[in-house]
Amino acid sequence: MRVRVDLAYDGAGFHGWARQPGLRTVQGELETALATVLRVPEVSVTCAGRTDTGVHARGQVCHLDVADDALTGAAGRSTGAPARAVATRLNGLLPADVRVRALRGVPDDFDARVSALWRRYAYRVADDPGTVDPLTRGHVLSWRHPLDLEAMNLAGGALLGEHDFAAFCKRREGATTVRTLLDLQWARDASGVAVATVRADAFCHHMVRSLMGALLAAGEGRRPPDWPAGVLRAGVRDSAVPVLPAHALTLEEVGYPADDELGARAEASRRMRSVEAP
Amino acid sequence: MRVRVDLAYDGAGFHGWARQPGLRTVQGELETALATVLRVPEVSVTCAGRTDTGVHARGQVCHLDVADDALTGAAGRSTGAPARAVATRLNGLLPADVRVRALRGVPDDFDARVSALWRRYAYRVADDPGTVDPLTRGHVLSWRHPLDLEAMNLAGGALLGEHDFAAFCKRREGATTVRTLLDLQWARDASGVAVATVRADAFCHHMVRSLMGALLAAGEGRRPPDWPAGVLRAGVRDSAVPVLPAHALTLEEVGYPADDELGARAEASRRMRSVEAP
Repeated sequence: MRVRVDLAYDGAGFHGWARQPGLRTVQGELETALATVLRVPEVSVTCAGRTDTGVHARGQVCHLDVADDALTGAAGRSTGAPARAVATRLNGLLPADVRVRALRGVPDDFDARVSALWRRYAYRVADDPGTVDPLTRGHVLSWRHPLDLEAMNLAGGALLGEHDFAAFCKRREGATTVRTLLDLQWARDASGVAVATVRADAFCHHMVRSLMGALLAAGEGRRPPDWPAGVLRAGVRDSAVPVLPAHALTLEEVGYPADDELGARAEASRRMRSVEAP
Repeated sequence: MRVRVDLAYDGAGFHGWARQPGLRTVQGELETALATVLRVPEVSVTCAGRTDTGVHARGQVCHLDVADDALTGAAGRSTGAPARAVATRLNGLLPADVRVRALRGVPDDFDARVSALWRRYAYRVADDPGTVDPLTRGHVLSWRHPLDLEAMNLAGGALLGEHDFAAFCKRREGATTVRTLLDLQWARDASGVAVATVRADAFCHHMVRSLMGALLAAGEGRRPPDWPAGVLRAGVRDSAVPVLPAHALTLEEVGYPADDELGARAEASRRMRSVEAP
């Protein structure tokens, strides 16, 4: 049977999502804990967004295949739903910087990566000494210059829609950089921190952090609000666009179709471009 | 002249507020940075709430006395208000886990400790695996049992007003434990975390964390909602009341009278009981 796992992690202590020999990664920690709880020699999970080193997640989604009786077996004598018992056991084994938030059986054609309709990230910036909070410094960027959110929203609005985002992506041989940017909106949260909501069908490598670099240049007045759109149109990587730090980026949510539309979605994806990490 | 400093800190790396030889404390770090920026051999600051080891602050307030030209001198050639320039220099020197949020000259009868009308703390608890967030694990307690906030608010409401809180305080020779509890209210924030707002004229030692221990016992159903009020009335420390962990406690705000009422407040305080740390 196929199992979906929703998880959250603090990226600070990890060399990103993807398992790498000799390095501490989220996939590595999760697969080790799953193998122990499910009492199998090895487990392989697939995730929606292969986050880079230092990037956090509150809404990462992954899937794996287990034997039909695996959850019931792993839940042991605990009362209540086996899936919930397995999640509790996983959290007992996992280090405090990764938490399983939910775990449940899903239809066989659910694929955490391929079925995803969109990924939503947040990028957080404290641009005023009065809003810098030492308690959140691990996931909020401290910025010395005040940001004009109106200018940043004007700049960001011009990037929405389907475009070739090559100018904001780290090139990968043979991979397309055409993406559909669905949301790019800045707002201040209750504590005054500037939060960007960035949602797209998928992201290419470094795309969110490069977009943020271009928008902050507009937000602090170093560049006009139409500069990011000009960079996009030029279609080549621009060294004037900084890739902002990873620690302020969080994968917040992944959107999926309803269960009965998963089959159609899988078919559509097979006809589409390959999907990469931001 | 008298200077007020508002600051925020992550308590995890500190042995509390108060300076202690050979230990890293918030007061020690702040006084060292102030002495450097003000170019004086020594500085002594007084704060509103002497937080314990591990307790955080977003709204700590302290004061110090400096020579009349000290701020202008320390600001150097920087343009803009000298107080703002000094705050920027302090933040450049201070470690990332302490931030100066504001700094300004105040009337001579402002005293961060004595003038304070009330202190407001928050205590944060994630009582559902779905709300546990690794990014905030440094200042939110993870709790295994679901909490009934209605029961906790019923229990907390019965503690409001002026009482002898000896049952919830670590005894100190000769110090009164009479306090006026102004607010004690639980609510869930946007992410589902249970947040207690606790406000009083002042707190005695361990008072907030003991109150939280009593309320959580009511919230998870181990004790009836009228149990904390019974403990209060008994008037002696009750070993059945746990002192909850420090890391979920944050000093959020300190209330002061308007500048022209500071004199009257100082006079009233002299006639009142001594004020201690929570």
